[in-house]
Amino acid sequence: MTREEMIETYRQWVFRMSAYQMALSIIEIDRSTVAPPAGASYRDERSAYLAGEAYSIMMDPKMLEIVNILKEDEQVDPVVRRGCQLYAIRLGNSLSFPKEKFVAQSMLFNQAYDAWLKAKQNNDYSIFEPYLKKIIESRREEYSCRNSDLPLYDQMLQDYEPGMTTEKYDAFFSAVTDRLVPLIHKVTEAEQIDNSFLHQEYPIEGQKKFMEHLLSYLHFDPSWGYQNETEHPFTSWTCQNDCRTTTKYIHDDVSSAILSTIHEAGHAWYQHNIDPAFDGMILSDGVSCGMHESQSRLLENHLGRSVSFWKANYPVLQEIFPSQLKDVTLDQFVAAINVAEPSLVRTEADELTYPLHIAIRYEIEKGLFNGTISTEHLDETWNAMYEKYLGVKAEQASMGILQDVHWSSGSFGYFPTYALGSAYAAQFVHTMEQQIPVHTLLEENRFDEIEAWLKENIHRHGCYLQPQDILKQATGEGADVHYYLDYLCDKYTKLYDLRGE
Amino acid sequence: MTREEMIETYRQWVFRMSAYQMALSIIEIDRSTVAPPAGASYRDERSAYLAGEAYSIMMDPKMLEIVNILKEDEQVDPVVRRGCQLYAIRLGNSLSFPKEKFVAQSMLFNQAYDAWLKAKQNNDYSIFEPYLKKIIESRREEYSCRNSDLPLYDQMLQDYEPGMTTEKYDAFFSAVTDRLVPLIHKVTEAEQIDNSFLHQEYPIEGQKKFMEHLLSYLHFDPSWGYQNETEHPFTSWTCQNDCRTTTKYIHDDVSSAILSTIHEAGHAWYQHNIDPAFDGMILSDGVSCGMHESQSRLLENHLGRSVSFWKANYPVLQEIFPSQLKDVTLDQFVAAINVAEPSLVRTEADELTYPLHIAIRYEIEKGLFNGTISTEHLDETWNAMYEKYLGVKAEQASMGILQDVHWSSGSFGYFPTYALGSAYAAQFVHTMEQQIPVHTLLEENRFDEIEAWLKENIHRHGCYLQPQDILKQATGEGADVHYYLDYLCDKYTKLYDLRGE
Repeated sequence: MTREEMIETYRQWVFRMSAYQMALSIIEIDRSTVAPPAGASYRDERSAYLAGEAYSIMMDPKMLEIVNILKEDEQVDPVVRRGCQLYAIRLGNSLSFPKEKFVAQSMLFNQAYDAWLKAKQNNDYSIFEPYLKKIIESRREEYSCRNSDLPLYDQMLQDYEPGMTTEKYDAFFSAVTDRLVPLIHKVTEAEQIDNSFLHQEYPIEGQKKFMEHLLSYLHFDPSWGYQNETEHPFTSWTCQNDCRTTTKYIHDDVSSAILSTIHEAGHAWYQHNIDPAFDGMILSDGVSCGMHESQSRLLENHLGRSVSFWKANYPVLQEIFPSQLKDVTLDQFVAAINVAEPSLVRTEADELTYPLHIAIRYEIEKGLFNGTISTEHLDETWNAMYEKYLGVKAEQASMGILQDVHWSSGSFGYFPTYALGSAYAAQFVHTMEQQIPVHTLLEENRFDEIEAWLKENIHRHGCYLQPQDILKQATGEGADVHYYLDYLCDKYTKLYDLRGE
Repeated sequence: MTREEMIETYRQWVFRMSAYQMALSIIEIDRSTVAPPAGASYRDERSAYLAGEAYSIMMDPKMLEIVNILKEDEQVDPVVRRGCQLYAIRLGNSLSFPKEKFVAQSMLFNQAYDAWLKAKQNNDYSIFEPYLKKIIESRREEYSCRNSDLPLYDQMLQDYEPGMTTEKYDAFFSAVTDRLVPLIHKVTEAEQIDNSFLHQEYPIEGQKKFMEHLLSYLHFDPSWGYQNETEHPFTSWTCQNDCRTTTKYIHDDVSSAILSTIHEAGHAWYQHNIDPAFDGMILSDGVSCGMHESQSRLLENHLGRSVSFWKANYPVLQEIFPSQLKDVTLDQFVAAINVAEPSLVRTEADELTYPLHIAIRYEIEKGLFNGTISTEHLDETWNAMYEKYLGVKAEQASMGILQDVHWSSGSFGYFPTYALGSAYAAQFVHTMEQQIPVHTLLEENRFDEIEAWLKENIHRHGCYLQPQDILKQATGEGADVHYYLDYLCDKYTKLYDLRGE
């Protein structure tokens, strides 16, 4: 086969995979938003079959040969070469896991999702436990087919964040808890900030109206993006010009939908800004989960909880909810949406306690895979850790171990990237603020100029660069957690007036 | 291959096709409801590819051999045998149309849909015309690959309604126009019924609230059905337990969403009630488009526009819209939603003029395929026919030739089934009223008993029986248009007090 023939074969192969990937994404979006539950088993069997077809296409040993040749060939377009490098890793990792096992695993994930949903609705961990156990066994078996010397959980961590290991995460979480746990104690003991006005009745229709304004302020464009409602907010996409976000409206908590909308818009912008030349290819995703999360957390926390952001947007919110907010000043509102208070649900956690929610999940995942924690009574383990780290206790499993969907799809090693992403975000913001007048831009409705900085420095690269390279290019240095911790300490010391203590 | 091996091969083949079919349905539902437009070309290319994969699986010549054997084998389960009969027809018809042509055609349909949408939004037929022309050429080429002695348009008619021909439809439409055109003239000249109160401002939120009530009255269950919003109401499904309907809310026309909701619920009930043993198989669709339409028209017109239906539901509507409806009596409301008035848009047409909208499309389709009508200036031809049949003229193409989506997907021969279905509906109702107390059941919130009659006599059979057999079993005779015409004449003579004339 000539080089040109190999490249053409590669392109067709990528196209075929992208078609299945698109179908599976849309089925997944549909399932998470509107699909009727009674159709689940029919749907699950068939989407597992289609996932298997995509797997068969990907696992073609001839393609491993081709990508191994192309990835080394200096004459080949660098975009194709980089794609081939990434596929070589993925195929090399998975080639010995047989298709039947893969399809059975997909089916298991589908069934586990349905079981998780039912368990959550019924507040009954025992409905989900047998599935969780099987998922862990299935993941063990899958990873045992890989040719790697790394411990199992380290392999999982690498899949979500290239370059990360248990050792590095241990150091990361230890730095985080060392500085944040005492800070949280101080905050808890300080004079509390009134945020009760956020918890009045806020009719959903008004919230939706504000979200339209907010999406428009964020230049989230209906021609390439669509926001839906779901139980558990997420962002999904099929290509650069088709990014879907979801949010959840809570009638007596106006900040929940606002902050999740800003958060998911961060993910959507990342996908939308990736170099169009990468569309449909393995390069067209965010480079890692941590990097993706950095973009959503950057928007949500560093921009979306700032005074300058709300200088532009608070008047609109006040206009929609005059009776609820007429006596609330801008500063009172911004203070209220920054309140830190240990709580049970990660997705509704404040910025300060958030990484501890992650630290708990990280500890549990490590334990599940090194054999020190079992799925049996894991709800109790969960509750005990929440008491230890955050001093709160879930009365209901739906607010405890069943709150998150991730484990139902076998996503272990994913959670830690949420905290890592927050740290990346702080580091990016530190540099960005030196280069562009971020807060003036926010005040002046010029979000597009912030987005242009993010596109240039982070988004456009897709998977073309590694996370470390992106950090280095954008900030001039490698990952450093101190930006994150300094930022939080500084912010919450001021907010709760802790300087004197 | 033994019989058992053939049956197993057949079952696996059916399962694989059903997986692609499900994916394509969900992609289509997504596209018609929420998918961002800028992603269209990416999506279109890939869904055409997947449609091609499904086509490849179906067009396996070995499977034609197997279904041809199984369909004749008396030892084989009758459900499998009937499925094989239907597949034998479908494969026999399509086997010589090459896959590349099929994929190109799918792609053309996808592009034509996008062009149609743009043309409609811009009121510009010239945007859509080149696609319509290509679609007709593509269909001509496709049908020329079939081994049939029937004229092209007759073959198309058969695909949507087995047993129907141009000759039969000519007779049908001639009977319809002969009796209805004079009746419509009389109605137009009679004293008009006030329906202006239907066109006040009806806030969408209130309409949505009423639709929730209505769906519940119709026992449309969120566990197996979901109603969404769209520009053009439709019903779609992936299996018996996953049926999706859509409706369109118009702020100054309260009856539009109500009647389309009832209409689409009729389609959804048909699919939901099909024998579960048929799920995923070719048998699991309604037997024909006419039969499907009979179920939606039956609910919409015979039940949904009746006094007894509104005895149960009008108080709820009045409660939601007190200022709009407090002075409107039940009888005034029911008369208003039955008003007949020649108009431009088929989906919003009244029951009496509706079949003339269909007669126009039938005449145009016949002309397009026998060469007497061309796509060029078809907008003008369309307008001229609307003036001739209904005395109305479209000022805008979006209200004229661009109003319907069907031709963008090459669906020629489909429209006539809408009128035929209305005739089937009248015939079913005639029998049903002799067997169960339909109007008492409606008044007493016992819709489930009506649905049980429809299930027993029509729905459950899926494609196991032919339309004629279903009619015969349910009503004791073959299709007879006089029930429909008698019903309309009787109804509108009374409503407009035409007896004296």
